[in-house]
Amino acid sequence: MQSRIVATYLVETRYPLEAAAAAMAGEQSSGTFRPVPGETPELLSRYGARVEAIEDLGEADAQALPFSRPPLGDPSARPRRARVTLSWNLDNTGTILSSVWSTVLGNLFELHHFSAMKLVDLVLPDAFADAYPGPAFGVEGTRRLVGVSGRPVIGTIIKPSVGLTVEATAELADTLISAGLDFIKDDELMGDPPHSPFAARFGAVMDVIDRHADRTGRKAMFAANISGDIDQMRRRLDLIEKRGGTCAMLVLNSVGLPGVAEVRRHSSVAIHGHRAGWGLFSRSPDLGVSYTAYQKFWRVAGVDHMHVNGLSNKFCEPDESVVASARECLTPMFSRPDRPDTVMPVFSSGQSAVQAEATHAALGSCDLIYCCGGGIMAHPGGVAAGVRSLREAWEAAAAGIPARDHAATHPDLKAALETFGRGAGR
Amino acid sequence: MQSRIVATYLVETRYPLEAAAAAMAGEQSSGTFRPVPGETPELLSRYGARVEAIEDLGEADAQALPFSRPPLGDPSARPRRARVTLSWNLDNTGTILSSVWSTVLGNLFELHHFSAMKLVDLVLPDAFADAYPGPAFGVEGTRRLVGVSGRPVIGTIIKPSVGLTVEATAELADTLISAGLDFIKDDELMGDPPHSPFAARFGAVMDVIDRHADRTGRKAMFAANISGDIDQMRRRLDLIEKRGGTCAMLVLNSVGLPGVAEVRRHSSVAIHGHRAGWGLFSRSPDLGVSYTAYQKFWRVAGVDHMHVNGLSNKFCEPDESVVASARECLTPMFSRPDRPDTVMPVFSSGQSAVQAEATHAALGSCDLIYCCGGGIMAHPGGVAAGVRSLREAWEAAAAGIPARDHAATHPDLKAALETFGRGAGR
Repeated sequence: MQSRIVATYLVETRYPLEAAAAAMAGEQSSGTFRPVPGETPELLSRYGARVEAIEDLGEADAQALPFSRPPLGDPSARPRRARVTLSWNLDNTGTILSSVWSTVLGNLFELHHFSAMKLVDLVLPDAFADAYPGPAFGVEGTRRLVGVSGRPVIGTIIKPSVGLTVEATAELADTLISAGLDFIKDDELMGDPPHSPFAARFGAVMDVIDRHADRTGRKAMFAANISGDIDQMRRRLDLIEKRGGTCAMLVLNSVGLPGVAEVRRHSSVAIHGHRAGWGLFSRSPDLGVSYTAYQKFWRVAGVDHMHVNGLSNKFCEPDESVVASARECLTPMFSRPDRPDTVMPVFSSGQSAVQAEATHAALGSCDLIYCCGGGIMAHPGGVAAGVRSLREAWEAAAAGIPARDHAATHPDLKAALETFGRGAGR
Repeated sequence: MQSRIVATYLVETRYPLEAAAAAMAGEQSSGTFRPVPGETPELLSRYGARVEAIEDLGEADAQALPFSRPPLGDPSARPRRARVTLSWNLDNTGTILSSVWSTVLGNLFELHHFSAMKLVDLVLPDAFADAYPGPAFGVEGTRRLVGVSGRPVIGTIIKPSVGLTVEATAELADTLISAGLDFIKDDELMGDPPHSPFAARFGAVMDVIDRHADRTGRKAMFAANISGDIDQMRRRLDLIEKRGGTCAMLVLNSVGLPGVAEVRRHSSVAIHGHRAGWGLFSRSPDLGVSYTAYQKFWRVAGVDHMHVNGLSNKFCEPDESVVASARECLTPMFSRPDRPDTVMPVFSSGQSAVQAEATHAALGSCDLIYCCGGGIMAHPGGVAAGVRSLREAWEAAAAGIPARDHAATHPDLKAALETFGRGAGR
């Protein structure tokens, strides 16, 4: 059984690749650039990071990031790119996520040897699945909570992001749930402001949800944004649980790994992971963390849903990147069939009935949360027709029927394709 | 009194600057790219982010980051760089740090309009000084705890980073404190591993510290790395307080803002903020967060010491950036003379007696923690001579005596300048 932590990086350096990889291993384990007293061969072999592989990707045209230095004695060395794999004894960090973060990332980004540094993959031993509870619901559990099978969970984000009163929020929730939505969520900017205090907003929306559940037998899921300081998150989580809510949303990057793990340990509801700030890790091809590695940290910490953007989105991410991210969410991390191991990818940003066919074709699955804003609200037939158009689009996709053919007999889908078919994502 | 949150960005865009700034303001407040129902003029004027200033910095040669899009109808528009200042009603976020993070950063990095996006400054209203306790000790409090005035607090990092037993750590601490060091710290990679459990390591080092304090009347400060999950950090903090420790170290980026704020709310000791992972924010000139903005988040959360790297460091940061960072730490944030508002900059990475003169000249202050590894351990006269060389170097710097002149009558300083004067930082 694998018992080491393994991390793979894309790097660029003017040092010989072996020397560059050794600098990474040294800085992130036993030490510093030169041997220090106490750094015995036994200690090094046990706790030193091990260079597992170096794949030379060839010379680069120019240095990607500034401020790197050439090796002493070879100032005109050309930059090369490489994939470097390192591994660590689990004893170095134990199973503490923040220690792993410091070890596989930490100072690496600042080493003067490198003009590119990106963590592209991370493999954690099963010991992390013992140390952390992981996702409580994942894909199947989320489907059970919302009572939806055979199609995506269809949802929306309450907009405007900021400024609605509690009453206006509840009224909008009523419109959306009446129209048949499975899932609604706060915007990541909506927390606990004076004009819409968390407790009042949550209570008012839950009243609406309960009223509809009495009628339909299905309880819509409300991902309420509880992000804040630890005591605030605990209080809001208590409120959600007492009031019969089924989900809490966390803005992962602003709450941090210990914050998410703390919420998970006290939570009996699904945790909706928003990745606002993800661009910091992803916008540069030469710096940061791949989504593959990124989402693993949060899954261990206990998130059930992970945002992945959407096809033809309003942001700058290419479609292939979105699809790769969603696939990662549906790929198991551990050998633990006894508990949820995959998480629901959340598609959002400029989504409508238009992207269902391509999304299904690319992902080969309906296991996702599909969030639309304008794709529902701006449907010419109204909100209910907007929701119907989404169900019809996914019905067709799941059955392998081209959307255009299905639209011939489904006017709401037809109207959606006509309305949103041009300028998707803009 | 200023009551809005103000953030300034360096951006690059092919959109007209006004349209680009409006996209930033819209995405990070009321909404999305197009008006939505409920977004009334009253709501917009109250909760919409306001574009305060746009400074055109001229055309860029090429796009800095990939994947941005040109405006519709003008595919050949050239990229321009600009400084954009936005402001928000404090009601949008309240005084919750993680909400501020989501608002001033969040999705901004992913907007398709931009090929560069860096938060360069952040101004928070005094309300944050009421909502968070801030630094408990800062500069003066740290000096009081270690009993050092008129010169920097001089310290070191226990190395090797990982692998030493508890006994070997205590023995090294004994050597270092015997030599006269004021401050020692764990490496950021050292947490609570099986070969050096936190409780045992902390206790053994404190025994050493107490023994020397009985002799000297001064208690060396030990910044023990408590980073981990919330309950782990709370337990370790309790242990530090019970055992009479005076400092706890947090790896800020791996612990997150709520994690730091939670530790601060329960802490009676100084909090040492390690910035491992800082390169993620800083390595690209076109993406991320300036140190000016970065350190403000952590100071509000309650950190007393902030790492700033060092002159001629072993990493890739230029000296002027290091000095600017240290100055920021010593610049007040709020109008609150009743409590600590500045924090101790921590210089480390390849430091020795060599850099003292230039550091003092650039900073104009001795208010800093000066951490040396090889600059102490590799001194030809031994560890005690290494520590003496540092005190002598700072004594000279503070008195305006050139190091070289002072060295003529101080052999330990002379040996340090000769030994470390070449290849500093390599």
